[in-house]
Amino acid sequence: MRPALHEELRRDIQAAREHGTAGLHHMLAYQLGWEGESASPKAQGKQIRPLLVLLTAQAAGGDWQKALPGAAAAELVHNFSLIHDDIEDNSDLRRGRSTVWKKWGEAQGINTGDTMLTLANLAILRLEETLSPKITLQAAKLLHQTCLRLTQGQYLDIDFETREHVTVDEYWEMVNGKTAALIAACTELGALCAGVPASVQENYRQFGYNLGLAFQAQDDLLGIWGKMDKIGKSNTGDLLSGKKTLPIIYGLSQESAFAARWEEGPLTAEEVPAMARLLEDEGARTHTQNATDSLTAQALDALHRAKPQGEAGEALRELAHKLIERTG
Amino acid sequence: MRPALHEELRRDIQAAREHGTAGLHHMLAYQLGWEGESASPKAQGKQIRPLLVLLTAQAAGGDWQKALPGAAAAELVHNFSLIHDDIEDNSDLRRGRSTVWKKWGEAQGINTGDTMLTLANLAILRLEETLSPKITLQAAKLLHQTCLRLTQGQYLDIDFETREHVTVDEYWEMVNGKTAALIAACTELGALCAGVPASVQENYRQFGYNLGLAFQAQDDLLGIWGKMDKIGKSNTGDLLSGKKTLPIIYGLSQESAFAARWEEGPLTAEEVPAMARLLEDEGARTHTQNATDSLTAQALDALHRAKPQGEAGEALRELAHKLIERTG
Repeated sequence: MRPALHEELRRDIQAAREHGTAGLHHMLAYQLGWEGESASPKAQGKQIRPLLVLLTAQAAGGDWQKALPGAAAAELVHNFSLIHDDIEDNSDLRRGRSTVWKKWGEAQGINTGDTMLTLANLAILRLEETLSPKITLQAAKLLHQTCLRLTQGQYLDIDFETREHVTVDEYWEMVNGKTAALIAACTELGALCAGVPASVQENYRQFGYNLGLAFQAQDDLLGIWGKMDKIGKSNTGDLLSGKKTLPIIYGLSQESAFAARWEEGPLTAEEVPAMARLLEDEGARTHTQNATDSLTAQALDALHRAKPQGEAGEALRELAHKLIERTG
Repeated sequence: MRPALHEELRRDIQAAREHGTAGLHHMLAYQLGWEGESASPKAQGKQIRPLLVLLTAQAAGGDWQKALPGAAAAELVHNFSLIHDDIEDNSDLRRGRSTVWKKWGEAQGINTGDTMLTLANLAILRLEETLSPKITLQAAKLLHQTCLRLTQGQYLDIDFETREHVTVDEYWEMVNGKTAALIAACTELGALCAGVPASVQENYRQFGYNLGLAFQAQDDLLGIWGKMDKIGKSNTGDLLSGKKTLPIIYGLSQESAFAARWEEGPLTAEEVPAMARLLEDEGARTHTQNATDSLTAQALDALHRAKPQGEAGEALRELAHKLIERTG
């Protein structure tokens, strides 16, 4: 599936390359890990979202090749959100390389993200070449509604940074938009392309949704207790930057030693290891791991109800495990 | 038409307002001039783009009300591009008020622009409620291709800032994407909603395209020789910031006194009035005015060929004149 996906993505990106805009095309290709310094399969990311679209389409009894434009659209939306997130979070590194804005400045960074989103919007309409106009319109609507959820989640995430108190419920509301919405859209889109009944589509959506929530909780755990070489970015960022992730919000809700120190003001780099241990002692790591495990079980349960078929069904189960099992 | 357009826009924006995201909705409503300090009809902008969609739909023999979601989409795309432009250009003022990023920071500014674009994408699909799936898909494709042209034009515009030499041809390539593409899309979209033959649609597109080019040349002229109270933003910006607009590119191509001073480095605020006069003496104002006049004539000629009907046709002609006649 990957070679066909890459061919699809290359065709979508090519549309940005016209007279005088080769530089814009290069920034898009850089973000996707194809060009520039350290271009490599690792720099391309894991491409879990497009694979979820294709595997779901096949496991639901459809033809994965017909879903290719939808898979490409999901990957392009993901990369659009990464480019803008990196500016919003002031992040220098992504997949072990300089971020787009760090290399070419904020103005080109913002505009390259806008281009990536636009190419996703064009890609999804190309489903019309393989599927009906009705399904194409449903798929486009699903994509845009998902982007709305993404921006709503991002709004909350940025808002949390300047707020003193964030509840665990508010955290899940934010993650719902910022991470789970797109993963849920991937499995729903795959099922939509396969033309299954609404109830089956809903099971696949639930699979993706819970998988997305589990993934984010796990990502938050690795952001404090993970090792840098495994995740390709600094693991001290969340404690240092004061980002309100699940373990931190849980820790603050305990109103104990961690919370007392946190409320005194920003941590120093030297304090981070001890604060990570303190947070673990107060139960935040266990709480986060339990959330991940429970959500993963719900995801696999929904997948079971969807009755995925053949090798693609098996691959979906494997992908879910692989996604969550990134240990520190 | 305006009350119906506002109702349509309000409904589109409302989709962003969910549990916890009232602040995001407020930023969107602020940008549209409905909420916050100095909210007023003036702060809402002239809404020329959506009016072009509606008037064209009616003048081409269609029902303007059926084109409302398309008109709203055009206005939302325009406002998305303004929010991001203001960050990219580091602009503090827009329509006489603080820009979104200036009030709420860059991170929320970028994300609010992304939300505005997403709401435009959702709006255009609502054409399905009044028109066929086929026309809806064509309209969505037109909108996204236009956004691609916008981002390509923006790429060139940002790129020009750091380049020593920009030709008059490159300038037009940039304006083609940055300004003319969206205005051309508005008149094309109106004609598409009316269901006219491709040749008539092309005439309307040509009308909007030339009008857009004429508008930008006029805007560049006002950016140097216009009065601040008329345009709601500083008119010394272009000479001070070194932005390569048509009069400046033309002036540089003369390789005379203006070019000699320009190449020595950034101008000071004190030098600006004298440099504006020098640029005028070297023929840049006349060159720019001639370009505006010639493009306006081509726009009106294309409109004539399209044979617009009734009061809407007359209103289109008036709107074209009004758009260009903003004198300093």
